Amino acid sequence: MIVVMKRGASQQQIDHMVERITTLGLKPTVLVGTERTVIAAIGREKSGVAAALESGAGVAEVMPILAPYKMASREIKPETTVVTAGSLSVGGEKIGVIAGPCSVESEEQIMQSAKAVKAAGATALRGGAFKPRTSPYSFQGLKETGLKMLAAARAETGLAVVTEVLATEDVPLVAEYADVLQIGARNMQNYRLLEAVGKSGKATILKRGPSATMEEMLLAAEYILDAGSQDVILCERGIRTFETHTRFTLPLASVPYLRQKTHLPIIVDPSHGTGHTYLVPDMACASVAVGADGLILEVHPDPENAMSDGYQSLTFDEFAETMRRCAAVATAVGRRI
Amino acid sequence: MIVVMKRGASQQQIDHMVERITTLGLKPTVLVGTERTVIAAIGREKSGVAAALESGAGVAEVMPILAPYKMASREIKPETTVVTAGSLSVGGEKIGVIAGPCSVESEEQIMQSAKAVKAAGATALRGGAFKPRTSPYSFQGLKETGLKMLAAARAETGLAVVTEVLATEDVPLVAEYADVLQIGARNMQNYRLLEAVGKSGKATILKRGPSATMEEMLLAAEYILDAGSQDVILCERGIRTFETHTRFTLPLASVPYLRQKTHLPIIVDPSHGTGHTYLVPDMACASVAVGADGLILEVHPDPENAMSDGYQSLTFDEFAETMRRCAAVATAVGRRI
Amino acid sequence: MIVVMKRGASQQQIDHMVERITTLGLKPTVLVGTERTVIAAIGREKSGVAAALESGAGVAEVMPILAPYKMASREIKPETTVVTAGSLSVGGEKIGVIAGPCSVESEEQIMQSAKAVKAAGATALRGGAFKPRTSPYSFQGLKETGLKMLAAARAETGLAVVTEVLATEDVPLVAEYADVLQIGARNMQNYRLLEAVGKSGKATILKRGPSATMEEMLLAAEYILDAGSQDVILCERGIRTFETHTRFTLPLASVPYLRQKTHLPIIVDPSHGTGHTYLVPDMACASVAVGADGLILEVHPDPENAMSDGYQSLTFDEFAETMRRCAAVATAVGRRI
Amino acid sequence: MIVVMKRGASQQQIDHMVERITTLGLKPTVLVGTERTVIAAIGREKSGVAAALESGAGVAEVMPILAPYKMASREIKPETTVVTAGSLSVGGEKIGVIAGPCSVESEEQIMQSAKAVKAAGATALRGGAFKPRTSPYSFQGLKETGLKMLAAARAETGLAVVTEVLATEDVPLVAEYADVLQIGARNMQNYRLLEAVGKSGKATILKRGPSATMEEMLLAAEYILDAGSQDVILCERGIRTFETHTRFTLPLASVPYLRQKTHLPIIVDPSHGTGHTYLVPDMACASVAVGADGLILEVHPDPENAMSDGYQSLTFDEFAETMRRCAAVATAVGRRI
Repeated sequence: MIVVMKRGASQQQIDHMVERITTLGLKPTVLVGTERTVIAAIGREKSGVAAALESGAGVAEVMPILAPYKMASREIKPETTVVTAGSLSVGGEKIGVIAGPCSVESEEQIMQSAKAVKAAGATALRGGAFKPRTSPYSFQGLKETGLKMLAAARAETGLAVVTEVLATEDVPLVAEYADVLQIGARNMQNYRLLEAVGKSGKATILKRGPSATMEEMLLAAEYILDAGSQDVILCERGIRTFETHTRFTLPLASVPYLRQKTHLPIIVDPSHGTGHTYLVPDMACASVAVGADGLILEVHPDPENAMSDGYQSLTFDEFAETMRRCAAVATAVGRRI
Repeated sequence: MIVVMKRGASQQQIDHMVERITTLGLKPTVLVGTERTVIAAIGREKSGVAAALESGAGVAEVMPILAPYKMASREIKPETTVVTAGSLSVGGEKIGVIAGPCSVESEEQIMQSAKAVKAAGATALRGGAFKPRTSPYSFQGLKETGLKMLAAARAETGLAVVTEVLATEDVPLVAEYADVLQIGARNMQNYRLLEAVGKSGKATILKRGPSATMEEMLLAAEYILDAGSQDVILCERGIRTFETHTRFTLPLASVPYLRQKTHLPIIVDPSHGTGHTYLVPDMACASVAVGADGLILEVHPDPENAMSDGYQSLTFDEFAETMRRCAAVATAVGRRI
Repeated sequence: MIVVMKRGASQQQIDHMVERITTLGLKPTVLVGTERTVIAAIGREKSGVAAALESGAGVAEVMPILAPYKMASREIKPETTVVTAGSLSVGGEKIGVIAGPCSVESEEQIMQSAKAVKAAGATALRGGAFKPRTSPYSFQGLKETGLKMLAAARAETGLAVVTEVLATEDVPLVAEYADVLQIGARNMQNYRLLEAVGKSGKATILKRGPSATMEEMLLAAEYILDAGSQDVILCERGIRTFETHTRFTLPLASVPYLRQKTHLPIIVDPSHGTGHTYLVPDMACASVAVGADGLILEVHPDPENAMSDGYQSLTFDEFAETMRRCAAVATAVGRRI
Repeated sequence: MIVVMKRGASQQQIDHMVERITTLGLKPTVLVGTERTVIAAIGREKSGVAAALESGAGVAEVMPILAPYKMASREIKPETTVVTAGSLSVGGEKIGVIAGPCSVESEEQIMQSAKAVKAAGATALRGGAFKPRTSPYSFQGLKETGLKMLAAARAETGLAVVTEVLATEDVPLVAEYADVLQIGARNMQNYRLLEAVGKSGKATILKRGPSATMEEMLLAAEYILDAGSQDVILCERGIRTFETHTRFTLPLASVPYLRQKTHLPIIVDPSHGTGHTYLVPDMACASVAVGADGLILEVHPDPENAMSDGYQSLTFDEFAETMRRCAAVATAVGRRI
């Protein structure tokens, strides 16, 4: 890392930092500039060390050089990881499409949805049985009953089941029914849950927290990888900014950025990322064009009467049309759906 | 709520929305304007209903009128709640001061810290035994050993113990040692944890998530209140913005805003809210001036060698000086420390 | 607009607001709800009125219903405006592509760039002669000399010239040489400049300010339209958020959002929107896929030695390759380049 | 600056960067680390150079070390600048208070306001004659008529006049009447205007743009200083974030941060910084507590009927009460009002 001393830092302060750096097992090189002195510390930086040095007397700033994630880094593993779970495959030439309602509401609703999204080309079924809701007074999901309905829909259609898990204690139950466990945006830094999911042996979709940096997201993935899983799919689902015409701001540049930094595959969620049905199809096309390895989309037989997220759900017809448009874009960028 | 129709919405679309509103148990009033039609829906709005109506054909926008939280609202309980837990009292004339190291590192470190902060006027001791860390490779806390050290420090100094709980399964253990459970910013919307803490019978500090709105924070508090607890302290600890000269942006206007909306007491964390030691004392004074009911501050015997958050921790001397300054400001605004 | 009274607002306070609304020429309708009273004010809202009412006693909130822009609204003019200026046409089936260096640096540099971007398919040439620079010590542009070089490049290649104008007093000079005047992001709310440009009779590209809302951007366009111009092109170029891996965050959902709200054509600037060359081609493809009517891209013969913005400029080869990829995507979404 | 090479960068790429750094007149030192190579470039960095190097092949990141502003830096001038203009003095022990209506509306309104704010302790009068308004249909100010009314109010009360200037061509006229020229937030990066104001010989208040970083603000001040003025007052007035319960987010930590970086005095605008009258008094107290050198506050005889900004204006009584509270806080922190 690079320790930048304040202008006018004393020799004693510089010596002190040199000593501190040496103690940390790093090799210090003092560079005396025309305006201020800089100390380069070469070697393997331990996490958090740069921040600690900042409280040294005479220190202006400490700049880390190495990315703090290791197992998620493309520098460690140059080829993209392909995550496969049942009918879903993400990371290869073919784009994975996960579609279905926000919440599982009834056997009929989920079965109908599974059939419709499969017919239109989806490769996995999504549906929430455990729902994290902003208000304690909102519908919290059908829980195990919902998981059973998802499993029934899989039995009928062959679609892999993707569903969210909210708490460590639910991991075994959800893992029993699901093909892919989803970590929601609110839980991206729920480290105990990340560890539990990483140990479950199931493939995982890790959604970006609405104020998480790329580095924080990759470190969250690192928790899962470190717990033993190889199968982590990153999901860009939008960040919180000053914009109000969309529920979140969906920054698609994170897709090519992540592709450079990590070997993990990346999907995009234009439903949460925009929060309005009428913006979803165009942003789905843009996600494919930018190089996403997959899409996750909310689809509902009757959005106006959905128990959650109706305002951002596509109807079956809208989904089929979106798929047709995305397929054309996929071809244009050398992929397929 | 108010349903605003698009310009040129058809009579059939308007009739459909009137029917939908009636079905929801609300009383619709159609207001035909010069440019567009608006339908007011009067009555008790259920959570999430406004959003669902948005997907109706011809609807431009749906604006909710009522706040979705109930038990946390000052409209329900006009007088400020005073939360008391051992030596700590927050919400009355006297300002509560919670101080101590980020992490419990050793018996000596926490005992020394407890004595020093008590001598300077703190009314509770903070210290992390379970640490949520961005990187899996960072120090994760001493866990139960740390809790025991905190309890020993309480036995010696009489200071109430405030410590973070990270997971539902740890609540019984942490509750055995702590006087106040802290929900960290990353867990503000970990609803299962909120419910578990609410049922524990312990007072709770709920930290604002870095991208949480005031409404989301009050709804998170509502989860705890709804689970049976009365003793919730809200904590403003900064939000994520484009600013980089501070680690987070600490928006003190949330203190008078919350005071108007809720009866729950509000404290401020200038350590995390700024992320740099040299900004902490001034922002602590500002927090008292703006009307905060308490402060939570990181204090460490040797910040440069702290195992976490050294860059934002005060030394014992700096803390004592901060307390002197805050006490003068408290007097100026009719409070005391 | 809708005036929401506080719970417990007195009859006198309600009567006062009814009177205020009547004075403003609006028709009030009082709706007494179970929890609070709401007053709907129907009629043509004057700008700023909603905000003023908010200071009335007993008022909780005032919610405007009508968009404050008129001439820019698609409700006024349903068909998309096609802006044509020399070789550039934006808003029709064919996507306009404006390319060239950040700054005009020399006759050779701009002539070479013009030829290269034309050969690769660009329909207009960009180049800055007056440069707004964050630091007073940075290169500020060649001014009139630069404008002459742009005109020479147009004479040679036939490409329309797009260049930024920084100040009211420069409008006549810049308008003499340019086909399209560009209002930079920093000047989006420089109203005097907007008026001057609107009166110049030249087509204008209006770039979004990095913290401007969609409504503010449309109101800035309204200043130009109101000054007499019909030919305004909106440009999404990214907003400031907490993200640091890109220089700005490029929110492509603003393209379909704007298409619904306004008849003005919309282009995207992936160079400023990402700030890193390696992200530009993918985001250019995504911009075309999402429905942009045009692109504006920084291209330089030797980015490493550019006098400004080298870090986000494409080489000639990279630009040609980007054009090939965008053309394929354009075809996929029913457009062409 | 520090050039961080990518892992696996070739020797040829490293050599190329060493050569580039040498060409720029800087002294390169190559540091070969365990994981990647870093090149330190020591010497006086020219503005923009770091960014340009980023496009070099094999370069991962370039980190500048020196602040790009010079004349505004406290490293150049250790003692705080005291700006004095008529009755207003900012930067000394006594806190300057600038108060008055958003817009000058009539002779009676501004005269009444001047007398009231003076009686309550204000040391300067604010009032807008040229108004930058988001909508072209909003009241745009009384222009020269308004300036004359301000001058009349000064003649009567002795209060220095602070008023905004919007455009280069207005500087001579506004400077004829005003004691202090104000650069509004929307114009913080209107460089031509900054230069014109810097040459006018008048003291200037420079308001922070809502998405400006501290560095950008100091560089904007640098434009004014570089044009010949010594008398620049910085004004924190809030930034745009995801928060909606306030119109802007007012980050008071910028006051102690700026105090460390610059010798220029710093004032705070809690009216625009919150956007709601009821939050202004508490935030004014907090501004004084955090160490602001001055306050600028909107005060109106009848906020409900103000032609602009009524929702954030204090009545005369509220202002007098705010002054009493701020005076007590000032004493507590060793200042006076």
